[in-house]
Parts: sequence; structure tokens; C-alpha cells
Amino acid sequence: MSSSSFFGDMLQTITERGRKLLSFAPRDQSSALGTKGLETECEALLSSRGEASGMALAKDILGRWSLLGEEEQRAFMRILLERFGPDTDRLERAIDAYRSQRTPQALLELNAAAEPRRQELIRRLNLAPNGIATLVRMRETLLKLKAGEPDLDAVDADFAHLFGSWFNRGFLVLRPIDWSTPADILEKIIHYEAVHEIRDWNELRRRLAPEDRRCFAFFHPQLVDEPLIFVEVALTTMIPEAINDVLDGDVLDGGRAPIHPGDATTAVFYSISNCQEGLRGISFGNFLIKQVVEDLRRDMPKLDSFVTLSPVPGFANWLARERKAEVSDALSEEDKTILAALDEPGWADDPTVAPAVKAALMPAAAWYFLRARTPRGKPVDPVARFHLGNGARLERLNFLGDRSPRAMRQAYGLMVNYLYKLDDIEANHEAFAGRGEVVATTAVRRLLRNGRPARSIVPVSDDGSKSEAKRKGNEEFI
Amino acid sequence: MSSSSFFGDMLQTITERGRKLLSFAPRDQSSALGTKGLETECEALLSSRGEASGMALAKDILGRWSLLGEEEQRAFMRILLERFGPDTDRLERAIDAYRSQRTPQALLELNAAAEPRRQELIRRLNLAPNGIATLVRMRETLLKLKAGEPDLDAVDADFAHLFGSWFNRGFLVLRPIDWSTPADILEKIIHYEAVHEIRDWNELRRRLAPEDRRCFAFFHPQLVDEPLIFVEVALTTMIPEAINDVLDGDVLDGGRAPIHPGDATTAVFYSISNCQEGLRGISFGNFLIKQVVEDLRRDMPKLDSFVTLSPVPGFANWLARERKAEVSDALSEEDKTILAALDEPGWADDPTVAPAVKAALMPAAAWYFLRARTPRGKPVDPVARFHLGNGARLERLNFLGDRSPRAMRQAYGLMVNYLYKLDDIEANHEAFAGRGEVVATTAVRRLLRNGRPARSIVPVSDDGSKSEAKRKGNEEFI
Amino acid sequence: MSSSSFFGDMLQTITERGRKLLSFAPRDQSSALGTKGLETECEALLSSRGEASGMALAKDILGRWSLLGEEEQRAFMRILLERFGPDTDRLERAIDAYRSQRTPQALLELNAAAEPRRQELIRRLNLAPNGIATLVRMRETLLKLKAGEPDLDAVDADFAHLFGSWFNRGFLVLRPIDWSTPADILEKIIHYEAVHEIRDWNELRRRLAPEDRRCFAFFHPQLVDEPLIFVEVALTTMIPEAINDVLDGDVLDGGRAPIHPGDATTAVFYSISNCQEGLRGISFGNFLIKQVVEDLRRDMPKLDSFVTLSPVPGFANWLARERKAEVSDALSEEDKTILAALDEPGWADDPTVAPAVKAALMPAAAWYFLRARTPRGKPVDPVARFHLGNGARLERLNFLGDRSPRAMRQAYGLMVNYLYKLDDIEANHEAFAGRGEVVATTAVRRLLRNGRPARSIVPVSDDGSKSEAKRKGNEEFI
Amino acid sequence: MSSSSFFGDMLQTITERGRKLLSFAPRDQSSALGTKGLETECEALLSSRGEASGMALAKDILGRWSLLGEEEQRAFMRILLERFGPDTDRLERAIDAYRSQRTPQALLELNAAAEPRRQELIRRLNLAPNGIATLVRMRETLLKLKAGEPDLDAVDADFAHLFGSWFNRGFLVLRPIDWSTPADILEKIIHYEAVHEIRDWNELRRRLAPEDRRCFAFFHPQLVDEPLIFVEVALTTMIPEAINDVLDGDVLDGGRAPIHPGDATTAVFYSISNCQEGLRGISFGNFLIKQVVEDLRRDMPKLDSFVTLSPVPGFANWLARERKAEVSDALSEEDKTILAALDEPGWADDPTVAPAVKAALMPAAAWYFLRARTPRGKPVDPVARFHLGNGARLERLNFLGDRSPRAMRQAYGLMVNYLYKLDDIEANHEAFAGRGEVVATTAVRRLLRNGRPARSIVPVSDDGSKSEAKRKGNEEFI
Repeated sequence: MSSSSFFGDMLQTITERGRKLLSFAPRDQSSALGTKGLETECEALLSSRGEASGMALAKDILGRWSLLGEEEQRAFMRILLERFGPDTDRLERAIDAYRSQRTPQALLELNAAAEPRRQELIRRLNLAPNGIATLVRMRETLLKLKAGEPDLDAVDADFAHLFGSWFNRGFLVLRPIDWSTPADILEKIIHYEAVHEIRDWNELRRRLAPEDRRCFAFFHPQLVDEPLIFVEVALTTMIPEAINDVLDGDVLDGGRAPIHPGDATTAVFYSISNCQEGLRGISFGNFLIKQVVEDLRRDMPKLDSFVTLSPVPGFANWLARERKAEVSDALSEEDKTILAALDEPGWADDPTVAPAVKAALMPAAAWYFLRARTPRGKPVDPVARFHLGNGARLERLNFLGDRSPRAMRQAYGLMVNYLYKLDDIEANHEAFAGRGEVVATTAVRRLLRNGRPARSIVPVSDDGSKSEAKRKGNEEFI
Repeated sequence: MSSSSFFGDMLQTITERGRKLLSFAPRDQSSALGTKGLETECEALLSSRGEASGMALAKDILGRWSLLGEEEQRAFMRILLERFGPDTDRLERAIDAYRSQRTPQALLELNAAAEPRRQELIRRLNLAPNGIATLVRMRETLLKLKAGEPDLDAVDADFAHLFGSWFNRGFLVLRPIDWSTPADILEKIIHYEAVHEIRDWNELRRRLAPEDRRCFAFFHPQLVDEPLIFVEVALTTMIPEAINDVLDGDVLDGGRAPIHPGDATTAVFYSISNCQEGLRGISFGNFLIKQVVEDLRRDMPKLDSFVTLSPVPGFANWLARERKAEVSDALSEEDKTILAALDEPGWADDPTVAPAVKAALMPAAAWYFLRARTPRGKPVDPVARFHLGNGARLERLNFLGDRSPRAMRQAYGLMVNYLYKLDDIEANHEAFAGRGEVVATTAVRRLLRNGRPARSIVPVSDDGSKSEAKRKGNEEFI
Repeated sequence: MSSSSFFGDMLQTITERGRKLLSFAPRDQSSALGTKGLETECEALLSSRGEASGMALAKDILGRWSLLGEEEQRAFMRILLERFGPDTDRLERAIDAYRSQRTPQALLELNAAAEPRRQELIRRLNLAPNGIATLVRMRETLLKLKAGEPDLDAVDADFAHLFGSWFNRGFLVLRPIDWSTPADILEKIIHYEAVHEIRDWNELRRRLAPEDRRCFAFFHPQLVDEPLIFVEVALTTMIPEAINDVLDGDVLDGGRAPIHPGDATTAVFYSISNCQEGLRGISFGNFLIKQVVEDLRRDMPKLDSFVTLSPVPGFANWLARERKAEVSDALSEEDKTILAALDEPGWADDPTVAPAVKAALMPAAAWYFLRARTPRGKPVDPVARFHLGNGARLERLNFLGDRSPRAMRQAYGLMVNYLYKLDDIEANHEAFAGRGEVVATTAVRRLLRNGRPARSIVPVSDDGSKSEAKRKGNEEFI
Repeated sequence: MSSSSFFGDMLQTITERGRKLLSFAPRDQSSALGTKGLETECEALLSSRGEASGMALAKDILGRWSLLGEEEQRAFMRILLERFGPDTDRLERAIDAYRSQRTPQALLELNAAAEPRRQELIRRLNLAPNGIATLVRMRETLLKLKAGEPDLDAVDADFAHLFGSWFNRGFLVLRPIDWSTPADILEKIIHYEAVHEIRDWNELRRRLAPEDRRCFAFFHPQLVDEPLIFVEVALTTMIPEAINDVLDGDVLDGGRAPIHPGDATTAVFYSISNCQEGLRGISFGNFLIKQVVEDLRRDMPKLDSFVTLSPVPGFANWLARERKAEVSDALSEEDKTILAALDEPGWADDPTVAPAVKAALMPAAAWYFLRARTPRGKPVDPVARFHLGNGARLERLNFLGDRSPRAMRQAYGLMVNYLYKLDDIEANHEAFAGRGEVVATTAVRRLLRNGRPARSIVPVSDDGSKSEAKRKGNEEFI
């Protein structure tokens, strides 16, 4: 109880410290050191002097870095690349020693010698109180630079390695976000929402305040005030087909009657957004979804269905390629003719056109998920790769699930439900990661078969019952 | 303000999670897997399956490990050593590739290949909520085993490497410990106090409750309820010579009149204790002292002297050797004769003996600090190495500063003050770490000179004034 | 430190309890008891049964009351009036006893007998967890009903008496409101702002987030989530003349450059709003301002001027009356002619008209503050009565300080600064409360003299220096 | 969630304010005002000046009061009695007015005029931040003085009236007390424990730390750091007969095996202590027990028996009187002869004596509870009056339940269980408060009948089953 408060105070300390970070500034602002000076300070931080004055040096370096212009920041990154790699002499000696006698000691030394010096440098920069916040911004810059200078990859590997360790799931904290969350955090939710834009505070309120809505975010205790990733959840009594079922209408304006959470059977994850560009590639989403599923189940035992309502960001591009292709396994010539309607604005609202489009589009969509593959053998759709890789199954394809301009442009309005069933997650993941199989419901697979029978497919019921689980050995994957 | 409370709640979440850790238990307690089963689970955790079910697997492995007997834990450590080292085939290939062409890519791969697989294993074990607590206990076990099986060093190197990164000072939080701290934390302070035993809660109260006493501890947000290191501080108006000046007498019993903190000029660090055996070698003390100095200065601007009152744990052993040695640079034959009194119980209370002993002992003590060196060229005393390495200077030697049985046995009652002067810390540290010099006051050096003039020594005033700082170039070190 | 967290947890308990209040509902919703049933339950609550089951009964009564329709609530209030007054038989006996012998015991009994039974009833209704919230809403209803049924005054007197005791300043807590305050509290700030409307969240952010803006509210620990009164403060380097100096322009849009709080010399209280209609007449504003002055002074020692920028809500009405009056001490016929321009829209923007209006309006305004009195001898303006009664002095009149439609309608745009000088507050209050004097600067008084010299007035400097304080004996009040 | 933290911070504010209270001191310590000066300040506080400077005045008065000597404090109380009673002139006029016309206005004025002026004075003293703490100490002093000066009753009536309103159950907060509670609070638990002494921190730990032990306290948000009342609870699987069943043996020392809370069926309230002498007569215990019962039931649904293990503080005195009495309804001459053994030390340990004593003592004890009455018709035992008045029933008498010297002296070791059954509490209370009946189990009543058959008694089973509830109409009360 109250000893948790003791630790509550602890985090206050961290936060206040964080606030002061804003005033991070070099000891003497007027005389910028330039990148050469920074290099000298970095060497000092790695030297014995760093042991005595590590915090002060780290603070100073991070402060100075924050004041650098774009070109200087690039120069700094190149210094990290060129001057803070491994000590190559030591490395050669370590390799010789190891090759001459493969002892544990030789291995230890080889391991140490192969580590770029910048790894220890980054660790020591983290001595500065809340240094981690600046380091994350540093990597954000680095990721931009990498586009033009691919050899910076080596520097990024070290940042990514350390961030992976520091932002380990064991260090993350899940926090509910609701209408009683501090406004400065909520403001960031508005800012970081990447899937279905939150236009203003009223919209935010509609997503957070009703009792059948939830939001959860991961935080890192050392990167206070900054959500890392968050998910928005709607509690419903059925799996929604369209985003407007979830977002439309203000409870307060009578547009939608919220349901009592105790009556909900389904939790719909309708928006997941990463917040920190500087943490790109550090994976949180998988853990977030599973933790939220666990927490919701504990609080609302009647919930038995955990499902996403997801965009299909790669569909329109893929379809365009298939339509243009001379030979397409996915589309017949007839399909191509029908789908020409997609190029006309307003097709979705034309009651004579839309049904025909649907009949051609949905099998193509099924093909997109079940058959289409990248050169590396993965599903084409990045969102599909994410959820299927997490162990979800492809539950349903929703025609015109999202008519927003972006969704029409990216996916001709197509939306998808992925279903998370805790008991199947591991098997689904194995199927996907190990054997490249996409676990999908019969309904989805039937779309494909109906459209373009490719192989003999054994129909399987979609009820998700235990009997299905038993029959899983027989279940057919694309 | 209140968004810090938001994060306060966050840490509550961590704490509650921590509490539940106690019930960490394997999925099926009755059928222990044995170490073989654990190895299989560890392999699974490192495999792709670990991506889908990492948290559950990690929880399970840590839970099972906690139930292992001593012999099984030893077996587990050997498995870590023998089965989770680097992939040697990959390493050989990486070396060949690097040797054939020293590209950044080859270096990257060499670095990755040289890393023992158990590093990633330990990182993934940390996926379990509060896994870190069990990992720290795991290393505690490992350190015990290492004594008998030195090849486990290689395993320990990986634990130490990761703990050094995770318990980075940037992640630590300083918290005051006082009489309103939760009892379960205070109980640990009693338990972990390693310098001057806290016999009971009344003694604890005497150390924490008076307004001229302070205590601070470092905590890690993920290892809640567990102080990592703490320091006890007395606010005084002069540098104390004896531990009884600090500890003796209960304020409430009239034994000691506490001073108003605003009147204090001196902060005495009279006890520093590390708490977590599993974090041995991860250095906190240096940062703790400096942070406490900074915080105290901010709150009490009149404080101008920050000083320890420290034990001298290696003195008696060293002196015994010198007394036995045929030839001693430190002791004359006359000294040896006088110091024979030390072998008689009660010498310290005998007014005819003690002064003579003092006259011989103090120069020897000065020699011990200023001249005596280990084979590796360091001062003999471990506490001296710590404080001098932090940039403190040797301020004063105190004859019979601690008459407790332990102190009499270890150091014939000798205590020492080390002085921390923020402006000089870096220079002092450089002198010590770079040139092996022990920075000491003239008073201490004079003891040596008087006793046994070895080299010409230029007297230097002890006032710590700016003029001294300027003359530092001339200052003479032993 | 952490024992304050212990109590932090305590308030969490209160809050969570508060949240559940929303589900306050009678034991059996379907069978409403009607007001007759409520009366019976109220009698039970006052009886011995109330001792055993007080909380449950109180909860039930408050829950049922919340479900009553308007007419039933009126009936309930009349029951409180008619059935829960003093026990008149007992009162007669107590009077007789007291008249026959004026003993302390007789007095005690008389005191007890004269107390209406509804006072104890209200106290016992407060046994319900967070009953106070419902009781405040109950009085809100009562105040509306009182307008039409003045004999309900007697009931209101009891509510007011108890609320005065329960919302005693000693029980209130001042809390800063800023951009990190929970959104549900901020939403109420938007809602309750009564002086200068906050149109949306962007406007709120402009008032709370810049570092030269502050907001403070009083809360009662038992009426959580509900500010009682709040004040918005701007930190400036001079006393502003117009509300746009304070509100205009978004810092982020470059409309206004915020100053560093450390550079501020002046704190401007530009909006004070009471929040709880049910607490009308319970005075908080006086305490709020003084507490905020104290807190700001402690945190920013350079602040030396605490001043309001206030509306003049009664001015236009008063001026209209004076303009219509056959004989006016305040206005000459010439004034009246000039002020006729006020009836034309756009006068304020007409460069030929506005200066003439100003010349006539400002002396009238000075008269309004310094000479005009209500029949009870008080200044006409309610805001003036509030600040002068608190011990502020009338500092400056600002022509066209607020051009918003409301301010133009209420006061032809006039705004006023009242100055709070801690050392003078008591004397100013005494002057105002004891002798009916309005303490004003020479500048304000000169306006009057210039316009309409009434008595000889000794000019006094406005510098607020110590010399002025000494000359206060001479200072002249209107 | 986090808005509760917002309010958490609020209470921190209160606490910190509370801490500063200790430095409450008059503006000028050197020149004490004496009681005459205090009287003047109190008058000022009641005057209009009090409106402007109320907080400062109240702080000053409370500060000065704290420095008064014993005799001066007495003088101050007499001033409150004599100078701050009702305004008698106004009272006479109000009576006249009311007698001439019994209007609501006249009643209102009569009510106001009959209120002693010190009530408003005490309210205004409470303006001082944390003034309430000093006011409680003030009443503590008053209660001591009242013993010798009964006319101070009139002053106490006003304190008691206001405290009853301010410490209303609706304002109290229940907090669990456990081993993670701040030490300064726990220290007070040791200090205030009034039933079974807590000798030291180890004993406290034994009572708080095991998982089958609980403790709860009421706090008032404005009297932070100070528990008002607390109860210690043991979770068991049967109703204990002796205090040693609860307190004996340290779990850690193997003296007692704690049970898993989930297995507990019975919650034993074995110690209830009021903490604040200055709040004597303000009733908390009733609410505390019921709230704790509710909370425990919610958390542990398997709990079905809530019972005390209580002392019988009045038994030995009553028995002595009966034994001396020439004629006793409670004791036969034979009983008296047997009970003479009680005067011999060691009777309880003598296997030949104790059984005979038991046979005579237990019927007498039953008589003591069921038949013996005070002159006012209440049970003789104060603890019995408390629990029976709360609606508990007398469950069992335990021979030699407590062999501590105090219990042997007060009650010859007798202990009693009172049972709280939520469904029966109201009926039991009504029976006791309304009809003077003591609800007791058949077993207890049988003791009486066996000893001394008085009336025909219908045996009733003790199982507490629903069938019993139905038969309650038949249940027989003494």
C-alpha cells in the first residue's frame, strides 16, 4: 500500500529531474566547442576522468549536442562511426590469441575487443540524469541521416542494441490513459495517434471518456512524460466491420449509446500507434496487446473475444501492380475490367457499381493476404505481418470498412479484423514464423476459393471452439 | 506537479507487480523439470518461440530456478557456461570474413558472433515482470559458486556486463530515508548496515529521526523495495574525530543535543553500505556520495565541509606484517618495541601506554596511507582506494576513533576522515588514478615526516582556500 | 516525505469512494418511496436506529433524493422546513427554565432546544461516504426554490451554517492547476470560468501552459474532483491596463513572448471564479488571494506587486440611472450630453468620439467607486466590495480595458486594478469595514477632483514606498 | 486513476503544512501576551478584523496558547467560559421577540443568539492551517480541567459539538496499517495500543506482517499523521477462546503457522484502541467495525464470522461487590465459598481449584452480562455496552481467556466473544437500545439457567443459520 507510495515518490523524483532536463545546457553557452571539442569530451568520458566526473561530462556533452546544427550533428555521427569503433589493434591481438588457444579468457577478451567503443560511450552518456531522452532524440536524428549515409548503420546497430536492452519489456510499465490523465500526456496522445486522426480535444474525449472505451500505453520509468506506444480499445458486443461503428457519434450528443462494460463480450483494438521515432525497431506492440488482453480479461471476465479493426496500408499499391501486370495470378481479366471502376471517384457510393466491385475486390483481398508474398516470402501487408507474427489469426475482411480519404487511397476502404486468442497464439506464431503459414478463418479462405480456386482446401468451421482447437492439426493454411 | 503523480501511480504498478513476484512459480509445481528441462526452456526462449511467448517462458524459467536446490543451481550455471557461450562455428566464420576483408559489416558480424548467447538469454529472462530481482539473486548464487569454479567467471562477466548497463547511474533514483519511511524498507536498512551495526529499532530511530541526521539510498525503479546502497550522514559543526561523537547518546534521553540543521557547517558521511550482494562490482558509491553532497548543498547553503568518518579495515593486518618483517621501511625497531603493547588487551585505556603507542602508531598509519602499496601499486586500504579514487583527499587520521571490538581488531581503533571538495574532485581523481598520488593534508603528511623523513616534503597549508587551489601545481603528493 | 504519500493514498481512497457515489441509488429503485417515505427515513436517521444503521440510511436517503423530480424536491424542502424545525415544546420548556434560573445548564439546554432538528439531520446525512457532494447539490436546488418561497430561508440558514463550518478555510487545500493537471479537472475549469470565457482547450492551454501564467484552486478533501474557487494569474513586468495585454495571442503562435518567471515583478489576478453554486455565500475568495500571494512571494522573491485586473459589472447600470436622473451629483449636463455617444454602437472605435467619452466617463467612474453608495452605505460595485473588503486598494481605472461584448454592455469596457499589499491589508480592511472608507491612489482620486471637485483633497503619491506607509495617517480617503 | 493522484498530491500538501505546525509560534516569542492578551486577540478574531486577518490571528492565538503554562491554560478556559458565552442581552431580546411572535425569523434569531460566542471563536481558530490539531490538544487539556471545575462542561459542550460535526464519519478515511506503513505512524500504533500492550517493534511486526493479520485505522484528512482509532484483526478458522491463541508465538520463530487468508472463515477483532484523548466521546468504533467487516467481506468472500475477543473490564469489581453483599441474586452462599479461592494467588494454575472456580464463576459471569444492570438500567460492563449497542450479540464466555496480570485483576482472566452479523445488527441494536434486551446465544443463557434458574427460558440453537433468523420472533432475550 503505502510502500508503493514510497516508490511513487521515487518516480516523482525522476519526473522532476526530467523537467529540469529542458534546461540542459553546456557549461558555457557562448563558446560552443564544435564537434572537435565534443570528440575530446567523449574521449574524456571514456577515460579514467569519466569515472570521476562522468555525470557532469555526460550532461555537458548531451547539452552541447542539443545545440548543434544539422550539419554538425551529421559530423558528430560520423565521428561516432569513425573514431569510436572497436580498438582494431586490440581486436587483431584478441583474434590472434583466440586462434592460438580457444580458452574462455581468450573468448572473453575477443568479445570485449569486438565491441565498438561507442557502446560504452553511449552507456556513459546515459549517466546524465534523463540522458536517455536525449539519446532517443539522437537516434531519431541518426535514422534520418542513415537514409543518405548507409555506413552509419554500424552506429545505429549500437544504439539499437542498447535501446533493446534498456527498453526491455521487463522495464516497461503499462498505464491506462483516460479522461483523468494529465493534459500534457493526453496532448501527446493526440499528437502521436497515427491511424485514425484525433482532430481535437472533443474527439479525444469521445475516445477516452465513455465507459465502453479504453486506452493503454507503455511507459519507461526513465523516459517520463513520454508514452512509447498506445492502443485504443472499444468494448462492444460484436466484432465491428467498419471504423465508423467504433468512432462515429458522440455519446454526449446522442450519437451513440455506450454499453455497460459488464455487458461487453468483445474488445476491439482499433488503433495502435508507436510514439518514439527514436525507438524504431524496438518492438513493443506485441507485448502491449498481450498485456492489455490479460488485464482486460482479469477485470471483465465476460470478455471472450479480442480482435483488431485494422487498416490494410499496402493493398491499393499491390492491387495497382496486379491490375497492370500482364499476367496476374490474383486477378482474372474480368476482375481487372470490373476493378477499373476503382479509378472513378465516387464508385463506393454508386449502388450499381459497388456490389460488382465488392465481388471482384474481396477475393483479390483474400489473395493479397493468403497468397501474395514479398521477395523474402512474407505477407505483403506490414500490418498483417505484425499481427500474424504476434500469433493472431486473420478473422474477417471488411469491404469499405473505412471511407476516409486515406483509407480509400491506401486500401480502397478495406479493413481487416485480426483475432487474438490467447490459447492459440503460440501455435499460430509457430505456424507463421516457422512454416510461413497464415492462419485464417474459413470465411476468409472461402473468399479466395470462390474467387480463384487454387488448391483443394478443406473447409473448417470458424467457431473457435475447443473442437476446432483439436482439429487444428487438420486446419488448412495458405 | 500532478503529472508526476501520474508517474507516481506508474511506480505503484511496478511495486504491486513486484509483490506478486513472490508467487512466481512454475506452471506445474509437482513436476519439476530438472536442469535438463530448464535448458530446453532456455533454448525455446532464445528461439522464435521466445518472440511469441517470451514473457510466459521467462516467468516460468525464473520460477523454476527459484525452486532448484543448491546442486541443481550449480548445474544450471554450468549449462549457462557450456551451452550458452558464443556460437563458435559462427564466430570462426565471422573471424575469417573479417580477416579477409575488414568491412564495417564484417566487424558488426564479428561483434555479434563473439557475444555469448547467454547475454541475449539473460535479456530475455528480464522480460518477466520483475525478472530483474530474480536475476540479481541468480548472480548472488553465481558469485558464491565462482569461488570454487573459477571458469564460471565467463558467465559472471555477462551478468556483470548487463547489470552495469541496467543499473547505470542514469537509471538510479536517490531517495531520502527517514523516520517516515515505510517500516519494511527501514527493516532492510537495519539488515544491510555493514559498518556500524544498528542493534534495534531504537538505534535506528536515533540515526534517522533527529533533525541533524540524514540518510539517503539509491533505488532502481525496477527493483522496488530494495535499497541498492545507502549512506548515513550527520550534520555537525566540526569534523568529528571519533564515531562516538556521532553515534553516542540518544537525543531523547538527553545524551546528545541535536543541532539545528541550519547551523550545520559540516556533513559527515559516517556509514556507507552496499545492499545487494548480487550487484557486487557495480559501482554506486561514487555517484551516491556526489549526489548527496549536491543535494545537501542545495538545501543547506551554509554547509561547506563534506567529510567521511571512515574505518581503516586493512591497517591491523598490514601493521602486523610490518612488525614481523625483518626489515621495515615503515617501522623502526623502536617503533616495533613500543607497538608490542598492542598485543596486550587494555592498552588503549592505560594512560601510561596509550600516548606512547599513539606516538609510534600515527606515523605508521600515515605511512600506511601515503607510502604502502599493493603489488599493483595501489594503496593497501580498500576504503582509502574507494574514497581517493572518487577524488576525496585524506584529511585527518584519528587515534582511537572507534573502540568497538571490530575496529580495535581491524585497525587498533584508527579512523580516518576523507574530505570531498567538489571543485577539487576531478584534479584529485586525476592525481590518484593517473599518477598514483594520494592527495593528503599537510597535517597527515607531517605525521609521516615527523616519524620517518623519507623525502623532502614542501609543507602546504590545509585551509582549502583558493590560493591553495592555485598552488596545486606545486602541491606535493606522496 | 513518504508518510505524506501514506496520506496521499488516503485521498486516493476518498476519490475512489467519490467515484462510486455516482452509483448512489436507493436499495430498490423500482419502488420509489415518495417524499412521505423519505420523511420516515429521515426520522429514522435521527432516531436511535440511526445510530446503528446511520451510514446505510443516509446513503439511501441521498440516493432516493437524487432520483426525485423537481416538484418532489420542493416538497422535500418544505418537509425539512415544517417537520424538522426545533422541537417547539422542548424549546418552550427550555425558555421557561432559563427565565426562571439563568444557569449554564439552562443555557446549554436552551441552545440545544433552539437548534432546528434538520441541522442534526444534515450532519447525519453526511455520514454517507461523499454525502457532502449530494448535500451541496441539495442546497443548489434549495437556493433556486428560495427565490419563490422565501420562508425556505430558514432551511437555507441551516445548510449555510453547516457548510460554513465544514468548508472552513482550515479544511481547504490550495492546489496549482497547470497543463499537467488531469483533464477532467481542467474541463471543469473551462466550465466554471465566469469572467473571461475559455472557448476551447487551445485557449485553456494558452492560459495554463506558458511559464508566465499560473492558476490556483481551492479544493475540499471530501469534495474531490471539484474545485471550489480558482484564480488565474499572469506574471508580468507592469500592471496591465487591458485584458488583451494578458489574454491576447498565443505564445506558440508568436503572438506574445512569455517572460521568464524570474523576471516578473507583478502578479496579475485577472480572473476569479466561484465554482459551486451550492456553496454560495461561503467565502473563499479572500483566503484564496492571500494564500496565492503568499505562495508566489515565497517562490519568486522578486515579485513585489500583486494586483487584479477586474471587471466593473455594475457600472453601466449605475451610469444609465445617473444619466436618466433629473439631478445627478455624478454627472453634469455636459457629461450627459457627451455620454449619449455610448448609445451608438461603434463609439469606442471612433477616434473622434472616444477621447471625449473618456474625458467624461473616467470622472464618472471615479465617482462610481469613491462616492456612489448602495442604500446600505456600501460601494455599488460588487467586485469592488469584494476586493476592498479584503483589504485591497483601488489602484487604477482603465478606459476600454475590455472590449468584449459583455464588458461593453456591463461597463462600457471599463476595467479596474485593485492592489493587494500585504502590509496594508489589515489597515485597508479596517478603513473600509470600520469607517466605510475606500482606499484609493491619488491618481484615482484626482480623476474625481478633476471631474467634479467635491472636497479639498490632499494629493498623495502612489509609489507605495515606506515613506507613504509612514504618511498613512495623513492619507486621504473618500 | 491519476486524478486520484492529483488529490493524492493534495493531501501531501496538507501533510507538509502539518509538519510546519510544529513551528507554530507567536509573532514575538519573547513578549508573551498572557491570557489577557489572548482574550483581546480572541475578540479581534471574532470582530471584523478577523475577516481580514483571520488566518494570521488564529495562528498566533494557537501558537501562544501552546506556550502557556498549566495555570494560564486553566485561566484561558475560564475566559472561554465566562467571556465567550452567548450575548445574553441579545438572547433576552431574542426570547422576547420569539415569545411575542413565533415566526421563523424569530426562531432563527433565537437559535443564533443562544449559541455561545466561543463556537464561532473555535471555528475561526480552525482557520489556521492545521489548527484542528491544536484544538484537539486544547480539548484534551479541558477534559483534565473539567474534573475539578465542572462548570467548564459548558465550554466542553461547544468543543464536543464542533468536533462531532468535523469528525463526522463522512469525513473519516479508513486506512490499512501494515508492515509497509511509515514508521512514524507505526510508532503511534505502539503508543496508542490500549488493550494488549505492544512491547516492541518485534511484537508489532508479529501483529502486522503475517498474512493472516490485519489492522485498520480511521484518519481525518486534516489531522494527518494521527490515527483516530484502530482495530487489530486476526484471520482464523475458528472463534478463539483465549488471547494467546491470537497473540502467542512468532510466525518467524515457528511458534505459529499463519493460515492462508483465503482459507480463513473468521475475522477476530481482538483489540480496539482510541487514540485521541481530545476526541473522547466522539464515537468512531461503531463505524470502524462495520466498515472493516464490509471491506474484509468484499476482499475475502469466504469469511462468514466476524467476532471480537474482548476483555471484561468491570467483572472483578462487580464480583467483589456481590461476594461481599449480604444478599446477592447473582451468587449463592456456596458460590461465595468456592469463589473465595480467587483471593489466593495461583488458583488458576491449581488443577484441583480451577475447575470448581469455573463452575461457580461462569454462571456468575452470565448473570453479570444478562441480568446485572447499572442504576440507569444498562449492562454493567462498558465493553459490553459498546458492542451490544453496536448491534453485536453476546456469543461466548471464555474462562481464563487472558492470564495477563491486568486481565486477572480486572476479570479473573475472563474474556468474551461478541458476534457481528450484518443482517442482525439493526434488530439487535433495536432490541438493546429500545427494549434493553441483551441478545445472547443459548450457550450463554444456559450458563445462567444452570447456575440460577430465574425464569423459564426457551433453548435456541446457536448456529446462526437462516432457520434461526426465521425463528427470531421466538428468540428469547434476557
